Amino acid sequence: MSTKESTFVTGDLVNCRIGESKTEGSFITCRDGMAVVKLESGYNIGVPEGDCSLISRPEIMESAEPAEAEQNQNLPQVTIVSTGGTIASKIDYRTGAVTSQFRATDILHAIPGLASIARFRAIQLCNILSENMTPAIWQQLARAIYEEIKGGAEGVIVTHGTDTMAYSAAAISFMVQTPVPIIFVGSQRSADRPSSDNLMNGLCAAKTAISELGEVAVVMHANTSDDICAIHRGTRVRKMHTSRRDAFQSHGTHPIGIVAYPDLTVSLSPEAMKRGSRSLTLADNLEEQCALITYYPGMDPAILSAYTGYKGIVLSGTGLGHVSSRFIERLSDLIRDGMTVVMTSQCLNGRVCDRVYDTGRDLLSIGVIEGEDMLPEAALVKLMWVLGNATSPEQAREMIQESLVGEIDRRSVA
Amino acid sequence: MSTKESTFVTGDLVNCRIGESKTEGSFITCRDGMAVVKLESGYNIGVPEGDCSLISRPEIMESAEPAEAEQNQNLPQVTIVSTGGTIASKIDYRTGAVTSQFRATDILHAIPGLASIARFRAIQLCNILSENMTPAIWQQLARAIYEEIKGGAEGVIVTHGTDTMAYSAAAISFMVQTPVPIIFVGSQRSADRPSSDNLMNGLCAAKTAISELGEVAVVMHANTSDDICAIHRGTRVRKMHTSRRDAFQSHGTHPIGIVAYPDLTVSLSPEAMKRGSRSLTLADNLEEQCALITYYPGMDPAILSAYTGYKGIVLSGTGLGHVSSRFIERLSDLIRDGMTVVMTSQCLNGRVCDRVYDTGRDLLSIGVIEGEDMLPEAALVKLMWVLGNATSPEQAREMIQESLVGEIDRRSVA
Repeated sequence: MSTKESTFVTGDLVNCRIGESKTEGSFITCRDGMAVVKLESGYNIGVPEGDCSLISRPEIMESAEPAEAEQNQNLPQVTIVSTGGTIASKIDYRTGAVTSQFRATDILHAIPGLASIARFRAIQLCNILSENMTPAIWQQLARAIYEEIKGGAEGVIVTHGTDTMAYSAAAISFMVQTPVPIIFVGSQRSADRPSSDNLMNGLCAAKTAISELGEVAVVMHANTSDDICAIHRGTRVRKMHTSRRDAFQSHGTHPIGIVAYPDLTVSLSPEAMKRGSRSLTLADNLEEQCALITYYPGMDPAILSAYTGYKGIVLSGTGLGHVSSRFIERLSDLIRDGMTVVMTSQCLNGRVCDRVYDTGRDLLSIGVIEGEDMLPEAALVKLMWVLGNATSPEQAREMIQESLVGEIDRRSVA
Repeated sequence: MSTKESTFVTGDLVNCRIGESKTEGSFITCRDGMAVVKLESGYNIGVPEGDCSLISRPEIMESAEPAEAEQNQNLPQVTIVSTGGTIASKIDYRTGAVTSQFRATDILHAIPGLASIARFRAIQLCNILSENMTPAIWQQLARAIYEEIKGGAEGVIVTHGTDTMAYSAAAISFMVQTPVPIIFVGSQRSADRPSSDNLMNGLCAAKTAISELGEVAVVMHANTSDDICAIHRGTRVRKMHTSRRDAFQSHGTHPIGIVAYPDLTVSLSPEAMKRGSRSLTLADNLEEQCALITYYPGMDPAILSAYTGYKGIVLSGTGLGHVSSRFIERLSDLIRDGMTVVMTSQCLNGRVCDRVYDTGRDLLSIGVIEGEDMLPEAALVKLMWVLGNATSPEQAREMIQESLVGEIDRRSVA
């Protein structure tokens, strides 16, 4: 065991010699004289500490905690609801893995610039990696957001893991009709990495939360230049890269706005729903017995029997919205027994149209509902919500094909 | 019933007055004095024939059939294997729907420019809409292609519906190690529509089939300007739009070449496998009991019991490759019972990495195999092939993580 104290502190940007080459990384800790350094790739390496030199010590790590009392009472009131995820994560020095460990207030401490944008209330709803998100937590989240807005919040920020953020943003879009911005934000790289996006994303989300927007949106890096965050409609966004900071992309519509960085100017598109244009309502029923099924060649229709008892299925079909004709009979039986079946496309872009080819016409004739240009994920969440709130199958069908919160465009952009 | 003969012939580009406005379309037929006209949108309208005027009569529709004997014996020998799809489709005038009705030789007649590129043999393997493609047909297709190349074909063109073309291209990539180009081509708009892409795609595919390429590829419109087709690696391509002509996009790698139109110059990238660099082999075993499962929040792990007896599962997880931690135990049981489980990402871009977060580390510890940067669809097809050809579970695991035909890149491009 080493007893010598390290010359570096956690978060230091260091340059280490490895053989003939040099590599930069973020100092994590020191064990037995070996510096544990996180590389840009996300991996940790161990290097003799003497082979490393300090490049810079990030100011953010040393910033004083803004006390609750120090918040400027003249600024708009914004609530941060924390659910976990990388934006709220810390390195576990024992394993080197990233875990969700922050409390909501820690986000204010980690991003001190927030204090000049708004007065914040922080609520810790849960602390999960977002792959563990559930419809039950969406309901808690919807209620918490509703209560905050009802209680005077002029904007809400939801910090969320990026894995399922798009699903959650879609869920809240349907459950909470909001007059104020409800902004989902996360980060693709944890705060201990030189390329972390948590600071910029957090600040852009905060400015969007006090903007003239009046809907649910996801605010994340628009590119890798650190100069723009995109504001994506909650029902129209999808995580399209495992690790890039600009992973989130709008589908079927352009982003509804951008935030310039570092000046934090928010520009909303004409299509964006404006603050105050809807009154606050909560409709938090969800029918959880809904599934998303991706079709592939050779898929056995017998798989559908696993969904007996389900109330709804979203199919992610091929092309214009197809599955093998071997599925027609089984789907027909399920629909006759009361299941709602919605067709979307695994192409992710463009509109389902089942009137063009034979298979599609057969699907329509048995009662499959065209999911228009909805993303499969948004269609799944919408189906849960529609089946939890519609009073008849006919009303459900109408609601599915109607744009409730901008999740469908009659005329899609590319 | 109308007895008057129409002044238009099928395929004529016509301009029709509808109320105050004019619209262009493709004349289909005449019923009771009403011209049935297919609009650019794909929909048919009925207009009094007198309200329509001729814009142009496409030459292609009137071209003489190139007789087998007329083929230039000095040109390279290429086999066209037809499987069906829009590129081989006709309008059903009764229903207005598009059906696969062409025989393989009809493609030569529909695209007379082909005759100056190569000598063609045409094989009609099947005539299906590609959502009905199956692993069994992939095996027939692989054998047919193998026999043609063995018999002297210097290139092969497979005409295929676009819905599942990427799956089939991936399947043939693994089943046939080829010294010559095997080119999948389709069209997004049928020949009766003014914007049909069948002519340009067909010619670009033919030129690629006689090029210096030595691997399986998909050749389709690269943009909407009608000036470039992209050559996509068979394991790296995905249909990303329901209706656009440039629907196909490479993932994890750039296209391996382009074909300029109309001069038909083929440019291959340095990464493209070159003609003759591999010797011809056929390995047509497939384990069909494999499934692709897309994870979503709230998904019930009990669904996995429907896959009892399956030999392999590809999970399309969230982010870096995650499913809810509620899945760990069930997946562990399935793996212990001999199932191979591969993790991919529904992000479609970027690499799976299960060493970063807790859930991923748990997945690795129970034996889930990281699918690297493979597309979920390519991983499914590869899993079928690997489990049909590996001699041990250890070998299967190695093959899955190894790039066999360019389906994995150690360093992904964005």
